[in-house]
Amino acid sequence: MTSKRFSGVLAPVITPFREDLSPDGDRLVAHCRWLISQGVALAVFGTNSEANSLSLNEKITLLDRLIDAGIDPALLMPGTGSCALSDNVEMTAHAVALGCGGSLMLPPFFYKGVSDDGLYGFYSEVIQRVASADLKIYLYHIPAFSLVPISLQLIDRLVAAYPENIAGIKDSSGDWENTRAYNEGGWPDFRVFCGSESFLLQNMKHGGAGCISATANVNPAAIKNLYNNWQADDAEQKQEQLNPIRHIFQNLPMIPALKAATSIYSDDPNWLTVRPPIVALAEDQLQQLQTQLDDAKFEMAGL
Amino acid sequence: MTSKRFSGVLAPVITPFREDLSPDGDRLVAHCRWLISQGVALAVFGTNSEANSLSLNEKITLLDRLIDAGIDPALLMPGTGSCALSDNVEMTAHAVALGCGGSLMLPPFFYKGVSDDGLYGFYSEVIQRVASADLKIYLYHIPAFSLVPISLQLIDRLVAAYPENIAGIKDSSGDWENTRAYNEGGWPDFRVFCGSESFLLQNMKHGGAGCISATANVNPAAIKNLYNNWQADDAEQKQEQLNPIRHIFQNLPMIPALKAATSIYSDDPNWLTVRPPIVALAEDQLQQLQTQLDDAKFEMAGL
Repeated sequence: MTSKRFSGVLAPVITPFREDLSPDGDRLVAHCRWLISQGVALAVFGTNSEANSLSLNEKITLLDRLIDAGIDPALLMPGTGSCALSDNVEMTAHAVALGCGGSLMLPPFFYKGVSDDGLYGFYSEVIQRVASADLKIYLYHIPAFSLVPISLQLIDRLVAAYPENIAGIKDSSGDWENTRAYNEGGWPDFRVFCGSESFLLQNMKHGGAGCISATANVNPAAIKNLYNNWQADDAEQKQEQLNPIRHIFQNLPMIPALKAATSIYSDDPNWLTVRPPIVALAEDQLQQLQTQLDDAKFEMAGL
Repeated sequence: MTSKRFSGVLAPVITPFREDLSPDGDRLVAHCRWLISQGVALAVFGTNSEANSLSLNEKITLLDRLIDAGIDPALLMPGTGSCALSDNVEMTAHAVALGCGGSLMLPPFFYKGVSDDGLYGFYSEVIQRVASADLKIYLYHIPAFSLVPISLQLIDRLVAAYPENIAGIKDSSGDWENTRAYNEGGWPDFRVFCGSESFLLQNMKHGGAGCISATANVNPAAIKNLYNNWQADDAEQKQEQLNPIRHIFQNLPMIPALKAATSIYSDDPNWLTVRPPIVALAEDQLQQLQTQLDDAKFEMAGL
């Protein structure tokens, strides 16, 4: 039960698109390499990856591309959740076969008001069909998007039935009391990641494992630095330095803002492209981003 | 612009599963034939079809099976919407190639708070990529599940840009004022379907095209009878006779209740199977259903 599980900082890697909106594997590889160089691991196909705007085949093709490019699969925690049991099983089994370190797994998110029995049944079917001790599931609690919360009772049942496979959770609720409750769940070696670096120090102090945060796409080294030194005297100060950068992005539509910053600092306009229903930043939003990042003396070194 | 568009009653056809949860094409064909014999058309892969629990390939295989079995494609309005642009385009193009009479199209439903610009961009991409005058889209407004509403302003823009392709809407809001507003939109030959037969007479009186209703799976002939005779003297009485049957199902989890009734009246226990996260009726719910249907002298003649 203490087999390798994730800890640290992960970026839900933004997904580059070509002009025709097809996924751009080359740029994804380059961005992943930069993120690894900054010390963070790769939660590809997360919410901020526009993963739910990608087909199963597109995700499989991109994941294969990363492995072919020599990215260490142990650093990969792809999002493999989807509404359809069959899609989830295929994607998850593929990630396990490639040796990915974990799977970040949304609950099925179309039907609302589903019971814990239904969610337990869903995760159970996935685990039994993938049937591998190497499957490490990180549950994904993001109620503002899924409207399907992951309750403490559901985790109790899943951990009891599948202690080898249920490895942790990402909490994107933004509700610290909920994150705290996950940390106090008492499940052995259960890894709790907060969904924003704003909670990173607090999470670490309560036994958490790190964070999986949108802004780790653009500010990875500083976030990792707080993770590495959360017990140091200046940890509070490091946390306070992270927050203004987070706020710059949080005050704009997050996905196009992350892509815009990546575009600006890599001098590559292709990074501006998003898939609908997400829309690119308007000109005034782009200007606001540029000005605020300049004022903050923000950099994406080595990008 | 008056090329063939749907009107009448459609059932969002329930999807049968085998014991291993794989879709059961034979039983689906049989149920579709019975529904056609009762006078209703087929909105396969709707919400009550557990469509969002099916993969793209599973839906394509089932649709092919229906056509191969001789189901008239003009009677088919498959749900082809999905979160991923690429999935939506592939499913929709396949339905058009098979000659399906229309496509019922959810908005992309993972991201929340998306703008009309983003939704317009999404539907535009689908229409431009499918690129067929035979594509007839029925937009799908089901805010309780998608949390992505279809606004009057969005319809205005879509109809103006794609008058041949935007054929109508299904309103599953349960909000009559919203359905009325769609009917009063002034768009040429725009077909408005209410999402429950409870609103059928009201919808017809305001220029609507019919209904696409869960309970058309089990009570098709009576609903169609009201549609056919909505201008007759006894139309109010017919509407009042439909409502108690609707309520029996509406007071239970809808999908498993529809499947349970189909199982009971076809004496086929396989119909009880649902895919997680949906769960089958509990024993007491099944008993409640049976008792209330017996009391109502309910039948599914010829099933």
